[in-house]
Amino acid sequence: MHVVTLCGSLRSGSFNKKALAIAKAIATQHGASSITDGDIGSLPLYNGDIEDQGMPESVTQLATLIATADLVMIASPEYNHSISGVLKNALDWLSRGENPLARKVACIFGVSNGKFATVRGQAHLREVLLALNVLVLPKPEVLIGMGDTAFTPEGAFTDPKTHEFLETLIVTTIAFAEKMRK
Amino acid sequence: MHVVTLCGSLRSGSFNKKALAIAKAIATQHGASSITDGDIGSLPLYNGDIEDQGMPESVTQLATLIATADLVMIASPEYNHSISGVLKNALDWLSRGENPLARKVACIFGVSNGKFATVRGQAHLREVLLALNVLVLPKPEVLIGMGDTAFTPEGAFTDPKTHEFLETLIVTTIAFAEKMRK
Amino acid sequence: MHVVTLCGSLRSGSFNKKALAIAKAIATQHGASSITDGDIGSLPLYNGDIEDQGMPESVTQLATLIATADLVMIASPEYNHSISGVLKNALDWLSRGENPLARKVACIFGVSNGKFATVRGQAHLREVLLALNVLVLPKPEVLIGMGDTAFTPEGAFTDPKTHEFLETLIVTTIAFAEKMRK
Amino acid sequence: MHVVTLCGSLRSGSFNKKALAIAKAIATQHGASSITDGDIGSLPLYNGDIEDQGMPESVTQLATLIATADLVMIASPEYNHSISGVLKNALDWLSRGENPLARKVACIFGVSNGKFATVRGQAHLREVLLALNVLVLPKPEVLIGMGDTAFTPEGAFTDPKTHEFLETLIVTTIAFAEKMRK
Repeated sequence: MHVVTLCGSLRSGSFNKKALAIAKAIATQHGASSITDGDIGSLPLYNGDIEDQGMPESVTQLATLIATADLVMIASPEYNHSISGVLKNALDWLSRGENPLARKVACIFGVSNGKFATVRGQAHLREVLLALNVLVLPKPEVLIGMGDTAFTPEGAFTDPKTHEFLETLIVTTIAFAEKMRK
Repeated sequence: MHVVTLCGSLRSGSFNKKALAIAKAIATQHGASSITDGDIGSLPLYNGDIEDQGMPESVTQLATLIATADLVMIASPEYNHSISGVLKNALDWLSRGENPLARKVACIFGVSNGKFATVRGQAHLREVLLALNVLVLPKPEVLIGMGDTAFTPEGAFTDPKTHEFLETLIVTTIAFAEKMRK
Repeated sequence: MHVVTLCGSLRSGSFNKKALAIAKAIATQHGASSITDGDIGSLPLYNGDIEDQGMPESVTQLATLIATADLVMIASPEYNHSISGVLKNALDWLSRGENPLARKVACIFGVSNGKFATVRGQAHLREVLLALNVLVLPKPEVLIGMGDTAFTPEGAFTDPKTHEFLETLIVTTIAFAEKMRK
Repeated sequence: MHVVTLCGSLRSGSFNKKALAIAKAIATQHGASSITDGDIGSLPLYNGDIEDQGMPESVTQLATLIATADLVMIASPEYNHSISGVLKNALDWLSRGENPLARKVACIFGVSNGKFATVRGQAHLREVLLALNVLVLPKPEVLIGMGDTAFTPEGAFTDPKTHEFLETLIVTTIAFAEKMRK
């Protein structure tokens, strides 16, 4: 089982990168044989004129990587009641041409700073992934708020229940991806 | 009345740029004294590390421009059931610091290629503008589909009713903006 | 200033009824001259065949009441990531015929049992009110979670900040309604 | 394979009932052994006080029926940018107690009168079904507009492509339901 990750936040200390690090460890424990981080920070802003001159190398590389995935993991912060423009820009590029995300199974989660977590962002992410024909299980919805205090200095979740929720999501989604491959 | 425009599509032949050109002519007819296009194509992808080193000049310029607006006009295509990542990226940058969009009146519309127009994208745009505390009237909802055939070679709308809808939107929103200034 | 209220929950001990009671006291303090509760619990389930035989009396009464309002206050719980079916049913009936809600100013808020409050329900409510051409300010968004502990035995909010948020919403919306009447 | 249907519209000449009739014929052709229509029109408006006195018989019957389903088919009109209050009311009742919809596979579609079909209503339906832990495939999205002219007098779709879309949805969802049962 090959996993590809996408992170909606680019900053080095990103809460969502921390959550992805935990998610990757969990996925490895539960049968992921390899995990590769997709690079969405090198993409240009989407522009049809650029596309007309030939798909940028950074897009092609990302699309090729995703095409190899058995499971896509997407973590996104919530900015302004939606997903980050950075993640949306990557998904917009990927939707051009062959759409490597079509019929892939994805597991999604997110961390934000507020108490309402990524509730609104994740609703938008589900609609965008619907457009891209990505399979996402309804439950559990992993919505992590109060990012400032959500992690220990060692990078674990402060609240063991958060770890459990994420583990349930990953285990359930891996089982679903395996079922869908048959 | 000073108007600032934002266009969610960057390509030169963009349907939304064409619609904005018509909208600008209408606004001028109905009392706009000056109109400036905001540049969202020069912004970097949002990254908190960049922000920590000082807001990019392109962001500051855009924010300063918007701060002068009495009315903001936003046209966006619908990509993957949402607004373009390019526009979302700009709004994410603008939400950092002082949020020049707060309490501004905006008029929104969009053109897409499909028959469902920008129905889903505009719903997302309204949610994002809600987060940014932007005032947007509920009606009319200007949702223009079939972009390929929506414009004449001279850049007018093929269907005069589309022009009327957009005019109603602009006239109503200008009146609303004037009322809100008092 | 005449206020009409709608409550998305019918049970006698409803959190949203409690919040509405506080909201009504606040509105009275800030200039509401009369407040009437709309009755949505007596409406039949919407059925076009019933409508064809003549609008039910309960619908006509509710529509007539709303037509007299200068401000509509809507409190709804969140059920299954949306507003209650009961409230939606009332809004569906009201949208038939003359739509007394058109161009009305509304102030919306909600209480739920969970920690994510009425975030998702309120997003749906805003979209429904958009369809009905109702004017709703973007901020503040009053989203009250943990309904079980949100009220004192005397029916005040446990947290004075919740009271303040609601008061800000009502004061701002009354001022907006007065501006829109001119 | 046992199928249970829910229709968001109660009127006898309902477009969605017509679409369901076609869908049921398609499902029978593709392996459904029995199909039962769920009755949502006999439910009371949801009221926690009623629930406290014991679940109404009409709710228990509907819940029991859904519990037997291998596939749930839901057709809903779009009213006011969302699903019908009637359907939402039924889903609210079903979410109380054991939630017979949990982990069921559903196939959803809808007919409306407008050109934007049930785009917005179906987005809300997906969010509600997400809350209820229902499995819904992303594609195809069957969104049927212009209900007035969508059907022949004999009750077939006027446009054979609409039939094909619906057939693809049903065949794909039946295959998915069979895979999920293993």
